Amino acid sequence: MSISEYILFTNDVAGAINQTIIELQPSSVFLLADTNTISLLSEISTNSKYIENAIKIVCNNGDSNKNIDSLTKIWNELVSNKANRNSLLINFGGGMVTDLGGFAAATFKRGIKYINVPTTLLGAVDAAVGGKTAINFAGLKNEIGAFRLPSKVIISSKFFNTLDKSEILSGYAEMIKHSLISNCNSIGKYLNFDLSDKSSTEMLQLVEESVKIKEHIVEQDPTEQGIRKTLNFGHTIGHAFESYAFMTEAPIPHGYAIAHGLVVELILSHLILEFPTTLLRQIAQFVKDYYPGIHFTCNDYPQLLDLMHHDKKNETDKINFTLLKNIGEPKINVNIDDDTIKTAIDIYRDLLGY
Amino acid sequence: MSISEYILFTNDVAGAINQTIIELQPSSVFLLADTNTISLLSEISTNSKYIENAIKIVCNNGDSNKNIDSLTKIWNELVSNKANRNSLLINFGGGMVTDLGGFAAATFKRGIKYINVPTTLLGAVDAAVGGKTAINFAGLKNEIGAFRLPSKVIISSKFFNTLDKSEILSGYAEMIKHSLISNCNSIGKYLNFDLSDKSSTEMLQLVEESVKIKEHIVEQDPTEQGIRKTLNFGHTIGHAFESYAFMTEAPIPHGYAIAHGLVVELILSHLILEFPTTLLRQIAQFVKDYYPGIHFTCNDYPQLLDLMHHDKKNETDKINFTLLKNIGEPKINVNIDDDTIKTAIDIYRDLLGY
Repeated sequence: MSISEYILFTNDVAGAINQTIIELQPSSVFLLADTNTISLLSEISTNSKYIENAIKIVCNNGDSNKNIDSLTKIWNELVSNKANRNSLLINFGGGMVTDLGGFAAATFKRGIKYINVPTTLLGAVDAAVGGKTAINFAGLKNEIGAFRLPSKVIISSKFFNTLDKSEILSGYAEMIKHSLISNCNSIGKYLNFDLSDKSSTEMLQLVEESVKIKEHIVEQDPTEQGIRKTLNFGHTIGHAFESYAFMTEAPIPHGYAIAHGLVVELILSHLILEFPTTLLRQIAQFVKDYYPGIHFTCNDYPQLLDLMHHDKKNETDKINFTLLKNIGEPKINVNIDDDTIKTAIDIYRDLLGY
Repeated sequence: MSISEYILFTNDVAGAINQTIIELQPSSVFLLADTNTISLLSEISTNSKYIENAIKIVCNNGDSNKNIDSLTKIWNELVSNKANRNSLLINFGGGMVTDLGGFAAATFKRGIKYINVPTTLLGAVDAAVGGKTAINFAGLKNEIGAFRLPSKVIISSKFFNTLDKSEILSGYAEMIKHSLISNCNSIGKYLNFDLSDKSSTEMLQLVEESVKIKEHIVEQDPTEQGIRKTLNFGHTIGHAFESYAFMTEAPIPHGYAIAHGLVVELILSHLILEFPTTLLRQIAQFVKDYYPGIHFTCNDYPQLLDLMHHDKKNETDKINFTLLKNIGEPKINVNIDDDTIKTAIDIYRDLLGY
């Protein structure tokens, strides 16, 4: 399946959904939304009898609800409404909804078809594409999940109008990551873009470009045996920051954690692979300018390292990173000891003035 | 991966496990057993330091424990013992353990490696091979699960000595099914075999032959898009019998349900595809001679049909069957209306004298 068949970029969401359902011929249609996104459905319902008639499942919004209770609720709704192997689940929402609904679809009767309609920038450029599905478990992000590609992803910028600044920034961190790992030489464009312009044509083009970088990588390695690990750039540190913030009851958006994770991992890239200083300083400055800081002290290092040791990507006692030699030159499976990581976090705090 | 690499038939279980672990080089080894099979481990532990040192997870035995609570317990043990993506889970037990542990492995960190060491005849010829993993959910058998092949299956007859007659009969029903769908012309051998001879060389040979029939089919169609559905022969009715017996608080072994399911589906095969009467009578007689009856009346037909309508294989309102035109001539995706099914159950009750 090529990218053009699998991901649609369109503002006619109802039309795209209708067309997809006519192609897939499901025996019944379910729609998963959260308590926020369900209110965005009315316009689509007017133009799609499939959406109007779909059996609606509504989960509580927020990443803390991407858990086994919400999963069980979806499975129960599918059972009680007699979903069968040819039923279709439409996930309508941000990354929480597409991750959760994707995993429910991947495991119900050992897998039914699903499509994602991301309503956030982060969902569009990250969670909704690529087939990684998951729930959080035991306080760990995405600890339980499966690889299963959606039958279709329908991406529209019309929902971005509903997003606040933090949600735009959260998605934008992943777009910067995609630009850093690709050899398109586009980082300047991303760093200079006016972020208040959230529903412009230029933004839609950036999203499409960004999604295509990701998909090009996923297609080569759907189950993350090799090159797909480059997409984890910024995420080893980023996930630790995110879990740390969650545990200290000062939760931050995923993308904020990734933005800061990118800076620390660029510093590691500099220390280990001589990533150029000028670029590193430019990106650190961008993150400092746009993203609120994460507050911790040296006393929190052991907890951060412990969180990194839980990372899914580790295969040894050391922590496994994807690093960059330069823009577009990623190196996967770089195992780094705890002391070097501490040094990088020291430099990061110094660079960002924390 | 050819069958010879993936499934080992040996009575040196410890040696086979040691060899497999040396090949796989996992970062840590976990072993799942149930409250019964854990006691069979001591001899293997003596001859395998890997088994001796493995982190043991023990679940309660019995199919009613193949549920989300047991699954959550395994995930928790993996998390708290710092399992990573390169950890290995060894499932040591009957179908309940290999289904449950296989699903835990398929979903932990989106999938870790696992190996199955079946300790029952049914597990050896059915659940442990082929990569179907699952838990029961909402009173439905294997409603939630995933396809994921084990890295290795180690099959030994040494554990069959511990099995009682009902457990042997339960596995044997699947072996008869394999013989019916294959074109090896072996059904006579199976019907005439002395079932008390449970650990003989001849039994081991029959198991190997039976497993190879299954694997040959699975290899051609791992995710059950087409030919793998032939393995469902007897199971649409069989699962309904099994769920019915469970719900009426008179649970019967899986294989008993399948044995009776085979007879009803042979009758359907006769009605729809003219499966030969002589063979049908022979097999019905074998089931009548060896397997205890299932007790229900016409009043229970609606409940049985409702259970069949929940079957994972249905894609329409009709019930989807695999039937046989003759031995070795299966036909998949035969959709049958409720009235014809009722007729077949009537004939079945008549034929077996219920």
